[in-house]
Amino acid sequence: MEQEIYLDNAATTKPLEQLKDVYAEYAAEMWQNPSALYAGATRTQKKIDEAKETLLRAFGAQEHKCFFTSCGSESANTVILRGAKQKKAMHYVCGGAEHPCVEESFKLLQSAGCEVTFVPTDKNGVTAPEAVADAVNENTVLVSIMHVNNETGAKNDVERIASLVKAKNPNALFHSDGVQAFCRERLQNTSSIDYYTVSAHKLHAHKGTGAVFYKEHTPLKPYILGGGQESGLRSGTQNNLGIFSFAAAVEYFENNPAEEKIQEIRRVFLNECSKIPDTVILSPQEEERSCGHIISISVLGVNGETLLHTLEAQGIYISTGSACSSKKGKSRIAAALGLTPEEAAGAVRISFSPFTTKEEVRAAADAIAKNAALLRRFTRK
Amino acid sequence: MEQEIYLDNAATTKPLEQLKDVYAEYAAEMWQNPSALYAGATRTQKKIDEAKETLLRAFGAQEHKCFFTSCGSESANTVILRGAKQKKAMHYVCGGAEHPCVEESFKLLQSAGCEVTFVPTDKNGVTAPEAVADAVNENTVLVSIMHVNNETGAKNDVERIASLVKAKNPNALFHSDGVQAFCRERLQNTSSIDYYTVSAHKLHAHKGTGAVFYKEHTPLKPYILGGGQESGLRSGTQNNLGIFSFAAAVEYFENNPAEEKIQEIRRVFLNECSKIPDTVILSPQEEERSCGHIISISVLGVNGETLLHTLEAQGIYISTGSACSSKKGKSRIAAALGLTPEEAAGAVRISFSPFTTKEEVRAAADAIAKNAALLRRFTRK
Repeated sequence: MEQEIYLDNAATTKPLEQLKDVYAEYAAEMWQNPSALYAGATRTQKKIDEAKETLLRAFGAQEHKCFFTSCGSESANTVILRGAKQKKAMHYVCGGAEHPCVEESFKLLQSAGCEVTFVPTDKNGVTAPEAVADAVNENTVLVSIMHVNNETGAKNDVERIASLVKAKNPNALFHSDGVQAFCRERLQNTSSIDYYTVSAHKLHAHKGTGAVFYKEHTPLKPYILGGGQESGLRSGTQNNLGIFSFAAAVEYFENNPAEEKIQEIRRVFLNECSKIPDTVILSPQEEERSCGHIISISVLGVNGETLLHTLEAQGIYISTGSACSSKKGKSRIAAALGLTPEEAAGAVRISFSPFTTKEEVRAAADAIAKNAALLRRFTRK
Repeated sequence: MEQEIYLDNAATTKPLEQLKDVYAEYAAEMWQNPSALYAGATRTQKKIDEAKETLLRAFGAQEHKCFFTSCGSESANTVILRGAKQKKAMHYVCGGAEHPCVEESFKLLQSAGCEVTFVPTDKNGVTAPEAVADAVNENTVLVSIMHVNNETGAKNDVERIASLVKAKNPNALFHSDGVQAFCRERLQNTSSIDYYTVSAHKLHAHKGTGAVFYKEHTPLKPYILGGGQESGLRSGTQNNLGIFSFAAAVEYFENNPAEEKIQEIRRVFLNECSKIPDTVILSPQEEERSCGHIISISVLGVNGETLLHTLEAQGIYISTGSACSSKKGKSRIAAALGLTPEEAAGAVRISFSPFTTKEEVRAAADAIAKNAALLRRFTRK
């Protein structure tokens, strides 16, 4: 195949080239167990501690600490299922179009008898801060609103949401799933964000590592039980390679901020998309309401999965929605956004990396247009 | 430092040299999200499925299936906390010297009102099969006995234990923590073992990957909730690199069985240890009761941690117990084995790999003898 245009960076990203040096160092000398007592091993613990500092700095930590997990899902599970003090009448608030690792955690709490209020988003996946505050009551122990929506790229003003939540109930804790936002959206003031959860493989590091940022003295119990690693908050021998690679990728993005470039790519792509007939932009169009790297569109009269495979035949890789739900259908988020059946059927997600070029997104938009025209001949009879 | 003798292989192992090729392939083309729908991604899912077959074959699976987790601790947590059907009077049976990831899971169940019987081991860490069967009653839903003890190398006859458990209560499920045993101890008949949990980094693969083997139709719910990966049993994007490396290491050990060689190393080391005055072998001496790669000894009149550091200064790396508990003291297992305070104080663990040489263990025993003599001059006044 001549071209290979990977536009599914919200699903996962290609590891940075320079991580091969991290691997080489790990395999040669940094593979030892961080919990062992001799110097060769304590050196790995020191490097893990430095990795935490790197991540916390990129987050804009204020009195936050960090521990590593195996993925974004485990991170969110830990916060939601172990992150609020047990009390009698437990009430939770959850966003209306959260990642399943958040939504399923709240459903588990619901089935255990807790009350959960789901706050609907607008049709692009944006959550109104006031709507979240309205849902908070005196029994609310935890509120969870994602920073950037993994389907549409919709950006929530989590700083404002967190402070409105605290204004309504100072005891309510606030969590944000930052998996799609970390190192892409900069936070000015994290002081009201009690928990923030992130994942390495969305940032050109390896799969298998996530982290939880949490404010000191905030309730938090371990979810994985065992040897008491990560200051007792996450047992299991640490994934040295995953952790070192995560920190190396974060450092790369700190030194090479890509937001501007990605917004420019987005402009080019949206401009091209506007020329495709009968195509609806599902993502928020305004840049201040959208993280640049994710665009969802619906090509009306076309089946998204069919479009995906015709593009694949041309070396262009996109998705019909998050990889986490691609095999289970996309009805959940379609319902959350209130899509029409035709919009839901034709929905595809295109997601960029800092390495995506204007030529690539022009070629992709062109291919979408041509394939759509072809496919509609068969479906619109 | 002239020599580097790593004898802490029960804590973690050095990644196999050939895993650098697995890394190179992963970084170049096998990094894609296994849940995505295009061929480049489904190829990674296929390789994950092949990895499962490799692991199941090495286990000696009979009607077993497999899913991947992030570590042995997560694997054990999943089985114990999600692996038995809820019913009214829940009773569990747990080994008396289990890894904390097992013990802490049962303690959580205990705090939730379940009844747990802990079955004491003998002084070497071996569990009598009859004692386990005696502990089983009509309300027993799950029994968990480790295959090889991570402190002493004591080997439990889990096949016999499992069948005695089933004979007493056919509805009781049996789990064995196989982290230290997998690919080291071969099982003849796994048909009574409902769950078996393993970890990659104890087998010269990378940290960050574990697996659960489970019999089909055995109750099991996911512990990590989210996108429904691993057939709904473990959410979170799979750790491709970790999984591929795990399978590569298992294949290596299938093709290069090391049990005989390690038992020979053990004989040499035990013979040298028998010459060190006032030194007690804490591990079972009989080879049929002990996995070859772990030896615990107690050098009486010496502090184990001091001995560890004097050996470290000579380039020899051992532990005072499992790395999981090394920073928390070793009182838990010392109590389980019924060690005297002096035995507990002088306990150290030495653990071999297939790459350990006779020269290395002779040098280590010699260094232990010399350092012990020196240290006793200071402590035995």
